[in-house]
Amino acid sequence: MKQIISPVKGTRDFYPEQMAFRNWLYEKIQTLSQKYGYQEYDGPVLEYLDLYTNKTSEEILKTQAFTLQDRDGRSLILRPELTPTFARMVAQKAEQLPKEIRWFSFGRAWRYEQPQKGRGREFFQWEINLLGPESPEADAEILAIAADYLKSLNLTSKEVVIKVSDRSFMQEELKSFGLTEEQIMPVFRIIDRKNKISAEQFNQDLAKEGISLEQAKKIEKLLSEKNFSKSPWLSKIFESLKLYEDIFEYFEFDPTIIRGFDYYTKTVFEAWDRGEGFKRALFGGGRFDNLTSQIGGPKVPGVGMAPGDYAAQVILEEYGKMPNISPKTAAVLVTVFNPELSSESLKLAAKLRKANINTELWAENEAKLDKQLKYADQKGIPYVIIIGPEEAENKTYTLKNLSAKSQEVLSLDEITRKLS
Amino acid sequence: MKQIISPVKGTRDFYPEQMAFRNWLYEKIQTLSQKYGYQEYDGPVLEYLDLYTNKTSEEILKTQAFTLQDRDGRSLILRPELTPTFARMVAQKAEQLPKEIRWFSFGRAWRYEQPQKGRGREFFQWEINLLGPESPEADAEILAIAADYLKSLNLTSKEVVIKVSDRSFMQEELKSFGLTEEQIMPVFRIIDRKNKISAEQFNQDLAKEGISLEQAKKIEKLLSEKNFSKSPWLSKIFESLKLYEDIFEYFEFDPTIIRGFDYYTKTVFEAWDRGEGFKRALFGGGRFDNLTSQIGGPKVPGVGMAPGDYAAQVILEEYGKMPNISPKTAAVLVTVFNPELSSESLKLAAKLRKANINTELWAENEAKLDKQLKYADQKGIPYVIIIGPEEAENKTYTLKNLSAKSQEVLSLDEITRKLS
Repeated sequence: MKQIISPVKGTRDFYPEQMAFRNWLYEKIQTLSQKYGYQEYDGPVLEYLDLYTNKTSEEILKTQAFTLQDRDGRSLILRPELTPTFARMVAQKAEQLPKEIRWFSFGRAWRYEQPQKGRGREFFQWEINLLGPESPEADAEILAIAADYLKSLNLTSKEVVIKVSDRSFMQEELKSFGLTEEQIMPVFRIIDRKNKISAEQFNQDLAKEGISLEQAKKIEKLLSEKNFSKSPWLSKIFESLKLYEDIFEYFEFDPTIIRGFDYYTKTVFEAWDRGEGFKRALFGGGRFDNLTSQIGGPKVPGVGMAPGDYAAQVILEEYGKMPNISPKTAAVLVTVFNPELSSESLKLAAKLRKANINTELWAENEAKLDKQLKYADQKGIPYVIIIGPEEAENKTYTLKNLSAKSQEVLSLDEITRKLS
Repeated sequence: MKQIISPVKGTRDFYPEQMAFRNWLYEKIQTLSQKYGYQEYDGPVLEYLDLYTNKTSEEILKTQAFTLQDRDGRSLILRPELTPTFARMVAQKAEQLPKEIRWFSFGRAWRYEQPQKGRGREFFQWEINLLGPESPEADAEILAIAADYLKSLNLTSKEVVIKVSDRSFMQEELKSFGLTEEQIMPVFRIIDRKNKISAEQFNQDLAKEGISLEQAKKIEKLLSEKNFSKSPWLSKIFESLKLYEDIFEYFEFDPTIIRGFDYYTKTVFEAWDRGEGFKRALFGGGRFDNLTSQIGGPKVPGVGMAPGDYAAQVILEEYGKMPNISPKTAAVLVTVFNPELSSESLKLAAKLRKANINTELWAENEAKLDKQLKYADQKGIPYVIIIGPEEAENKTYTLKNLSAKSQEVLSLDEITRKLS
């Protein structure tokens, strides 16, 4: 046999079993988003590269972008995240849209990373944003949704934590240490990768940016700060979070949280596994007040987050909390007794479907009944119907319950009632 | 103001209004597929170009492919259709899969075509396939689903028609006119574009393939044939279709139907607008018995179809049958009376959500009540709740019905009951 052409590295096939999990997650996300009044949107997955330049993460654009050229020679990118598309859509219609924009989406994105456990090159991301208000209450709402999401996955605050910080507060602090405006972003990037590098490397990287030893020490001290009262913004957010019931224990202040995206202006946050299973952020988010104006539109401040499907699956597996879901099957399989009687089976199947009963009809005329029963069993279809010569003569049907291994001879009406 | 970075030509933004239509269509498709026992699957949208070479349509690959290179220099393609991915997935697991494979998917695909009404470069496609059986009954099932789909869109058999033919029958006929094996596929392609070219051009194209004038006349006559009794395969399909109730009038035999995809082996069909609105096929499908073996797997015969979202929208608009659907809103907006009372609003919103009531909370503290009511009205939220100093004092809430323009003062329990 020839070799089967392989799938592209880092992509996934969603067989019905995997699709059932994706749909389960999507339904959770839809329900939760709608609980807070968010409406579903979607954009193209192809965008002009310009939409991302100088806005998204530098690392993503330089090393992880899937790009192609259109026939006019313009560079396109397969979206590595959804926020810039969202910002473009808002900017295009800013005048007609309501004052508070609550939208969510669940779609594909691509990054050219090394595939590993919990990370692929093609993934799904839930993007949820609140645009318009520039208030700590807006940020608290997104954070509350983040905690509600973790709860809906059945993850407790002993297992996961949402670490929150404030970039503008950090910026003020760094400036008070004598850092210039130009040093801020490079230093942010170094802080962002702090837990991936050694303390030595961290100090060397800072020195390269012209940070003095004394300044480095101050930064080090700042990063272990537990008290956020110097940020009125964060103080208000945490006050609000306290008012939501049963979620406050998911949150803590953590000044090492920066996020890789350049567009974040104020609040930034990341959800983390408190255990040892998942050593990267589960997901993150933050406030981006200038993104719509950066892409050429009016300024519309906003806050949002983007949990992905890989992390959800890995953390659920880690804590033994993967839901037990199977693909949906038909309620019944109508078997075919022999080619002469196949029309009886077809007519019955059509009638059952008309009565809104999900009905599968065996399609290969020549198969033995055994094979058909085995098929129903393998697929998890609970009932089969047999129409042999006797049943055809009497206009009755034998209904077999596969798990109970019982069977009865019924009329069409009786079967319809039973399976409805 | 700078210019807003534009979306890529031929792509669409799905604002909540457009998304509501896409979700409506997706739900119809899901419900219908499950009615026949089909399970949802999905694949990557990126595949190696090899998966398509010599299988899909030559036209698509040569002129309409969105391709890119991975970092090892291999050519990737953004899927122009879903069937080859489906075949790859089946080929990979052919041994473990059940004898009859009923799967469907609803996903994006890309073709570099000239955008026009009812056609874009990025579109959504419902792919539904039945693999395993090589029987006319299997083809009849897919055709029945096609008719059921048109019915579920509220399109009558006076408005649309499904034209069915049989490539293997056509092949035998062409051979009986003296055509060689090598002439068949080129002649098929000419027949496929017959209604896009003049009669003169048609004859010229045939002559170029070495078809004699006498043969061309025979082909011409064959293409106007209304009787399909020479094809036992088609005869059996139409017999089966007669047994399904209320769909037979959607079908007719049409020997000009060929389809552009190279992998079709036997049955081919296309749905067409009987009116003048949509001058291309609405969608098509057919039997492909060799696709899994062509990509390196075992032979698994199959039949399927792939209706797209563009055509559905255009035909519904043409016949004035677009559904009246709005994006889902929250059941209620909790307004904020003033910054001091915002915590009362937040606490109420959290309680309503806990009671499974979809609740939006105004997020900007400083807004006037008027502005908030206008917002709810614009978004179509049916109720708003007001918590002023009096309500806060008495632990009551003013519930306003925006369409009835009425209001009442209620307790939390009363509100919860009313909105549940």
